[in-house]
Amino acid sequence: MYCVLMAGGVGTRFWPLSRADKPKQMLNILDKRSMLQMAYDRIRPLFAVDKILVITNIDLNDQVRFQLPQLPQENIICEPFGRNTAPCIGLAGAIIQRRAQKDEVMVVLPADHLIEDEEEFRATVRSAVNYASEEKCLITMGVKPIYPETGYGYIQRGALISEQDGKPIYRVKTFAEKPNLDTAKRFIKSGDFLWNSGMFIWSTELIMDQFEHYQPDIYEGLQKIVRAVDTPQMAKVLKKEYSKMKSVSIDYAVMELAHKVCVLEAGFRWNDVGSWEAAYQIALKDENRNAISAAAQCVVDSKNNYIYSKKKLVALVDVEDLVVVETDDALLVCRKGESQRVKDVVDELRRKKMMEYL
Amino acid sequence: MYCVLMAGGVGTRFWPLSRADKPKQMLNILDKRSMLQMAYDRIRPLFAVDKILVITNIDLNDQVRFQLPQLPQENIICEPFGRNTAPCIGLAGAIIQRRAQKDEVMVVLPADHLIEDEEEFRATVRSAVNYASEEKCLITMGVKPIYPETGYGYIQRGALISEQDGKPIYRVKTFAEKPNLDTAKRFIKSGDFLWNSGMFIWSTELIMDQFEHYQPDIYEGLQKIVRAVDTPQMAKVLKKEYSKMKSVSIDYAVMELAHKVCVLEAGFRWNDVGSWEAAYQIALKDENRNAISAAAQCVVDSKNNYIYSKKKLVALVDVEDLVVVETDDALLVCRKGESQRVKDVVDELRRKKMMEYL
Repeated sequence: MYCVLMAGGVGTRFWPLSRADKPKQMLNILDKRSMLQMAYDRIRPLFAVDKILVITNIDLNDQVRFQLPQLPQENIICEPFGRNTAPCIGLAGAIIQRRAQKDEVMVVLPADHLIEDEEEFRATVRSAVNYASEEKCLITMGVKPIYPETGYGYIQRGALISEQDGKPIYRVKTFAEKPNLDTAKRFIKSGDFLWNSGMFIWSTELIMDQFEHYQPDIYEGLQKIVRAVDTPQMAKVLKKEYSKMKSVSIDYAVMELAHKVCVLEAGFRWNDVGSWEAAYQIALKDENRNAISAAAQCVVDSKNNYIYSKKKLVALVDVEDLVVVETDDALLVCRKGESQRVKDVVDELRRKKMMEYL
Repeated sequence: MYCVLMAGGVGTRFWPLSRADKPKQMLNILDKRSMLQMAYDRIRPLFAVDKILVITNIDLNDQVRFQLPQLPQENIICEPFGRNTAPCIGLAGAIIQRRAQKDEVMVVLPADHLIEDEEEFRATVRSAVNYASEEKCLITMGVKPIYPETGYGYIQRGALISEQDGKPIYRVKTFAEKPNLDTAKRFIKSGDFLWNSGMFIWSTELIMDQFEHYQPDIYEGLQKIVRAVDTPQMAKVLKKEYSKMKSVSIDYAVMELAHKVCVLEAGFRWNDVGSWEAAYQIALKDENRNAISAAAQCVVDSKNNYIYSKKKLVALVDVEDLVVVETDDALLVCRKGESQRVKDVVDELRRKKMMEYL
């Protein structure tokens, strides 16, 4: 079996820390390790090193090599540019088909999410792999929701079709986009909805068949790429075929169309760490619920703040619910509840062509 | 006539910008010039260069020389340590007596205040000098208050005793310490109270007589210092005598005790710039009433903030009424209305012996 770590995200939501050349998966905001390193360490006990592929952007190749020196260079797959998850997963499938020369289960995982119960996570992946190797089924991982998050997509489960090692597997009724708060509350109340974690487990043959059926254009490109895998022509072919592919998510391109889709209900705690506020929720906090990462601090009557400054003394006086992030060239001060609007800053900087800050 | 610019303040209220080696009067938060330079330029049209004395701390001598290269070195008087305004003013008086060899009017001005109507200010000083050269009177400058500020001392005026060039001069009834808001409102309503600007005009002989009468200990020290002025022994004598002097304000040591005290009601706009909030009130603001000094900025739905960052892009998202000040080694985030509590930070840093940030 193979593991595919998707590490191609551009990550504007952690600006000013995340930049074009330093997206979220490369940041170490949660740990001494980067999120990619955490994802790698998390799945490493399940996979041989040569069976772990990291799909990333060509510009991040050196950073990935530096962060994961154990990984063979040929297992770092560089997309010439981002085309969302469908081409990325298709590319991984094509490479695994070419290298394995037989059908293999592949586990597709985003490299920039947080999972807290690692043992439980690995047990769940193992169960999904077992099921996928027996049943022709596209498995998606659904996480039991614990509050009505509006920043996640949801999966509505249908009939229970199996139990694998005690973990229930359901048919998928619908994929739901990010809901508003009322809808999210309704989802939670119904008990039928799971958070869409963006993790997938399936046989390579099955997923490639789906591409052939539902996305023949992408499939055609992938076939040309397959023939170039591990040849000197790879980069050139990849660039040519990728430039012709549409940018589309695997949910939209395959999952919402395919018949053999099921969802495994996972019990581990998961967070996609999609905003500074999410990082705050996860972070260690002091007795005033401040999460402060700084060279030194002096806090006067302040609470519920998320502060990141690598090198400075940070002093707070009578402030609350702020996100303050300081980097070498930028300083963000944001109301915590509005931290998803950091993308408005990034958009504005792009409009003003202030590329040095992106 | 002589002008004495008092530039010995330690200035913790503008931390983290103001430091032990860079107090408020040396900062250029209001202008390209420092507040000392602004004070010097403001009074320069009235005084010959060699009649302007700057009294400062020994550690600031080089900075004063650098900021006021026109000023002869012997006109930069260095206190070995701060002893509040009474010894400082006494020292200035003693030096003027020694150098002038006759009675002279001296104008004493803090070097870290803001005065907006400079012509009016100079006209007022001229009137006060004229009055002080005719009448044996300790003149203090009272500023017509425009709102009930609780951060200033007040002067209650008594009977009108004269008009000098159209400016009313009153007896002083009382000096009032910083009031609470209700008291400040009562002061304003009464019409009898003026802001105590800490500016004084008097004949050197008269002020030295007051020291002799009300502060004989200080006077005795000053007499020893007088004999050493402009001799190689000066620094040594100054240090010895200063170490014996008590630290006391001129208001407390002389003004509140003396009989011949009057107040000239000044019409110019004045601000002692005693906090970051005061700096905000004075600063130029954008259409959302943000005062931002930064390398670049990106403001999303934010208003009424004071931001200072020399080298960085500052991005604000949905925040208001904040003071954010970033220096090479520190970052302050403070609710604007609480900016006088920056001194709590300084106190805390001192308690923790984090002297590198002071």
